[in-house]
Amino acid sequence: MLKLFYAQNTCALASHIALEEARAPYEAVRVDFRANEQRKPEYLAINPKGRVPALATDRGILTETPAILAFVAQSYPAARLAPLDDPFEFARVQAFNSYLCSTVHVAHAHRMRGYRWADDPAAIEEMKRKVPTTVGDCFELIETTMLAGPWVMGANYTICDPYLFTIAQWLDGDGVDVTRFPKVVALQKRMSERAAVQRALAAQRG
Amino acid sequence: MLKLFYAQNTCALASHIALEEARAPYEAVRVDFRANEQRKPEYLAINPKGRVPALATDRGILTETPAILAFVAQSYPAARLAPLDDPFEFARVQAFNSYLCSTVHVAHAHRMRGYRWADDPAAIEEMKRKVPTTVGDCFELIETTMLAGPWVMGANYTICDPYLFTIAQWLDGDGVDVTRFPKVVALQKRMSERAAVQRALAAQRG
Repeated sequence: MLKLFYAQNTCALASHIALEEARAPYEAVRVDFRANEQRKPEYLAINPKGRVPALATDRGILTETPAILAFVAQSYPAARLAPLDDPFEFARVQAFNSYLCSTVHVAHAHRMRGYRWADDPAAIEEMKRKVPTTVGDCFELIETTMLAGPWVMGANYTICDPYLFTIAQWLDGDGVDVTRFPKVVALQKRMSERAAVQRALAAQRG
Repeated sequence: MLKLFYAQNTCALASHIALEEARAPYEAVRVDFRANEQRKPEYLAINPKGRVPALATDRGILTETPAILAFVAQSYPAARLAPLDDPFEFARVQAFNSYLCSTVHVAHAHRMRGYRWADDPAAIEEMKRKVPTTVGDCFELIETTMLAGPWVMGANYTICDPYLFTIAQWLDGDGVDVTRFPKVVALQKRMSERAAVQRALAAQRG
């Protein structure tokens, strides 16, 4: 059985929702970031990067949200979570998720994890200061050029939606006024009404 | 026909090599970063992110290296650039490329593009200072836990190889001694002997 290693309020929520959407048999295992469990030898043996999510399968461990999301979509094709038979449309899905992962999540990470890229406390503070601008700019681009509506890719729900939903939940903490982005707000609302999303959120709270 | 928008010494080289490996019919179009062409309206109409690579197809534009690489692999299956029929192995390929994109490339970007995440010159300098450590740590993890050898995924050449080759070319500029990583060095050598790599490099120099 699949085992999803997650921590609360992290991007692992996207994979958690996708597993629920796919109705995949899986177990969710919480990694306690407050106790720094992600840096302990037990967890590093699972994911040497010391991050979540990690998905344990009977063939080995998978990491990185875009890879896990595409894996879930391909492994449970009946759930229709991605345009699997169309390389161009599949690439559009992947491009969106890659942007979230390498640009949007990274912009956000400069608020709480600036120590990854600088040691000087003043520099870390300075990074924090710019987060509302950088994250806001990313969402401006998403709102105006990427989010087709009602779902990210248009008429069909895909693995882009739980990922955007997850990262958009951080906007408030990042000092970005989400009401600037009505399409994002509408997507958040649609997402929060889905049973799979409610199940994943409840499991992470529980 | 496909059109690859690239700039020299950027991650667009990975997609360029993949197109050559696939023997895809394509045209390479240089975007002149010194003239800041990537921020001009003509290019922003192609890629609103103002970055390379972008791949123009007859169905629209694709961006983001991991997405373009998987698109090339799926569109030209005869070139066998990825384990397309095995979702788990495909996900391992994607996880590797996602790590390069969201962690390794991002660590590197703090050397020359720190202005993305901070305005204060002192903070930008401080980010620069940490690059040899952060990029070195990434390659340590790649060398010890990810690069199976001789190719990234083991016996088979995949779309992970041109991407790692591309980013490893920046190690010297990043102040990281590549000889710490003998498997990476060996991969660089094997890559530079491939005709497709030589063609892509020559096209970008020409």
